[in-house]
Amino acid sequence: MSKPAGRTILASTIAKPFQEEVTKAVKQLNFTPKLVGLLSNEDPAAKMYANWTGKTCESLGFKYELLEVNKNDLETALIKANKDDSVNGIMVYFPVFGDKQDQYLQQLISPEKDVEGLNFLYYHNLYHNVRFLDPPQNQQKSILPCTPLAMVKILEYLGVYNTILHYGNRLYGKKVLIVNRSEIVGRPLAALLANDGATVYSVDINNIQQFTRGDDLSEQRHKVVDLSPEEYTLEKLAPQCDVIITGVPSENYKFPSDLVSHGTVVINFASSKNFNDDVKLRAGLYVPSIGKVTIAILLRNLLRLIHNKQIRQGEVSDATSSA
Amino acid sequence: MSKPAGRTILASTIAKPFQEEVTKAVKQLNFTPKLVGLLSNEDPAAKMYANWTGKTCESLGFKYELLEVNKNDLETALIKANKDDSVNGIMVYFPVFGDKQDQYLQQLISPEKDVEGLNFLYYHNLYHNVRFLDPPQNQQKSILPCTPLAMVKILEYLGVYNTILHYGNRLYGKKVLIVNRSEIVGRPLAALLANDGATVYSVDINNIQQFTRGDDLSEQRHKVVDLSPEEYTLEKLAPQCDVIITGVPSENYKFPSDLVSHGTVVINFASSKNFNDDVKLRAGLYVPSIGKVTIAILLRNLLRLIHNKQIRQGEVSDATSSA
Repeated sequence: MSKPAGRTILASTIAKPFQEEVTKAVKQLNFTPKLVGLLSNEDPAAKMYANWTGKTCESLGFKYELLEVNKNDLETALIKANKDDSVNGIMVYFPVFGDKQDQYLQQLISPEKDVEGLNFLYYHNLYHNVRFLDPPQNQQKSILPCTPLAMVKILEYLGVYNTILHYGNRLYGKKVLIVNRSEIVGRPLAALLANDGATVYSVDINNIQQFTRGDDLSEQRHKVVDLSPEEYTLEKLAPQCDVIITGVPSENYKFPSDLVSHGTVVINFASSKNFNDDVKLRAGLYVPSIGKVTIAILLRNLLRLIHNKQIRQGEVSDATSSA
Repeated sequence: MSKPAGRTILASTIAKPFQEEVTKAVKQLNFTPKLVGLLSNEDPAAKMYANWTGKTCESLGFKYELLEVNKNDLETALIKANKDDSVNGIMVYFPVFGDKQDQYLQQLISPEKDVEGLNFLYYHNLYHNVRFLDPPQNQQKSILPCTPLAMVKILEYLGVYNTILHYGNRLYGKKVLIVNRSEIVGRPLAALLANDGATVYSVDINNIQQFTRGDDLSEQRHKVVDLSPEEYTLEKLAPQCDVIITGVPSENYKFPSDLVSHGTVVINFASSKNFNDDVKLRAGLYVPSIGKVTIAILLRNLLRLIHNKQIRQGEVSDATSSA
């Protein structure tokens, strides 16, 4: 293989400043925050991931407790953790039932302990560019879902966000392709980037949608349009994009490298490899995985939840010291 | 076909007292309540159902407005209806996207206007036997999901609830089979009947679960156990049941009539016919469909939402006059 003109950037490199930030912030608390993971899933991969989360938490100065419970007892365990004052954050390893009951359980996690930012309240705020939980005081920042927020931080690190532009408009003119429209990552990510000025092409198995900020800024909501499948194909759109992001949870899926224009920023957030190595010959910057950034952001969210609670309890007076 | 010993009871018969109740109650208000239906679904059957809902509403003294919007504009239309003081109740005709985005949209309906009782807040209250929204005042009753509540009313009408037993225990000793474990109907219904003392066998494509009230009443939550598929088969369980309820949304599915013991109460809530006519030769009471009861209960919920709002606004002083 010839020598790539671009660079591969590892998640560990991007995660480092965030790890340092949370490690420093956690030391300033007068207690050690506790994250509880609830595992009701017999998948050995989920257990490995849970153990990895635990090790990362502890290496950065957080307590982590893994509770393994029968799926029929998960609701009770979750409610107990919601009520337990010693628990600062809760995450559940999904899928559990693999059907809509999982959504019910996910939404049952108290927003005050929802480190992953998966509560519909937080999604709603994301979709509508609502940044605070307590208007008009605006002291408690809304939580952003971990993976979409990690992606924004990665795009900032990679220089895709242009800091010469005004805040809130720093993706103006950028075209971004996202292959994934899940409710957890793809759709909120498309909205987030569109709200920052990008034109986003959101690809799923059914169609391609275009997300933009829209013209009516007073609505504070991105516009979504279904693109005509005759006019707008992946083959036409992908080579025009500044950024290509993939998240297809399949070992068999590979994004076609020949649709990646030279110099494109390429990021994969799936746990499987969505690109063949030859993409390095074309990508300007290539981030093959993002897990380490996501977990740093998760702990950053945990600190924010603690900070929001302190604000509510009157222990601190504003959000300026927030992580 | 020989003459059945049992009776077929039509939904219109059971719905009648509820229709009369809501018609009377709506006349006592100093305004006409408005229900808004949001249709973003190109299925002609959904439109027909929406029109039927509209006609029923109007015949019982309610206003009904059908809004047809592009699915990509549904969120905006929904938020507008949430904010519109002239709108008392909102329902969305699902599926819209047919994926998890539908849950997000469903949960976005304000609990204060959620006539179908689909908000997770209401499900949570149902699962935990929480009857009021405003403890310790206990003036605002929690809303129950329409179809499960309609089913309880039907079982009361059919005499399955034994009024000689104490309230909250009136299904004590009853065995109920439910073929459906959807998040909208089957699972909450199983919990509701278990909370009233029944042993419920909940059947879905994967397994059979047993729902009971459990021994630890302080937990206020039914117990769920996965039954061993070797020991507990449909063939063994169904003939022991006092009540068989089906809700399989398929024209091809038929519950085997030979598994229905003579005198069993048989109810189908699917829009398709889940039983062949020969079930009448075995069923003690057979209710072939329940739609008319469900819509009367939906309007009853609408009146309860209005009553709860009046309580919050201090316009009435207690819940005793509630529909």
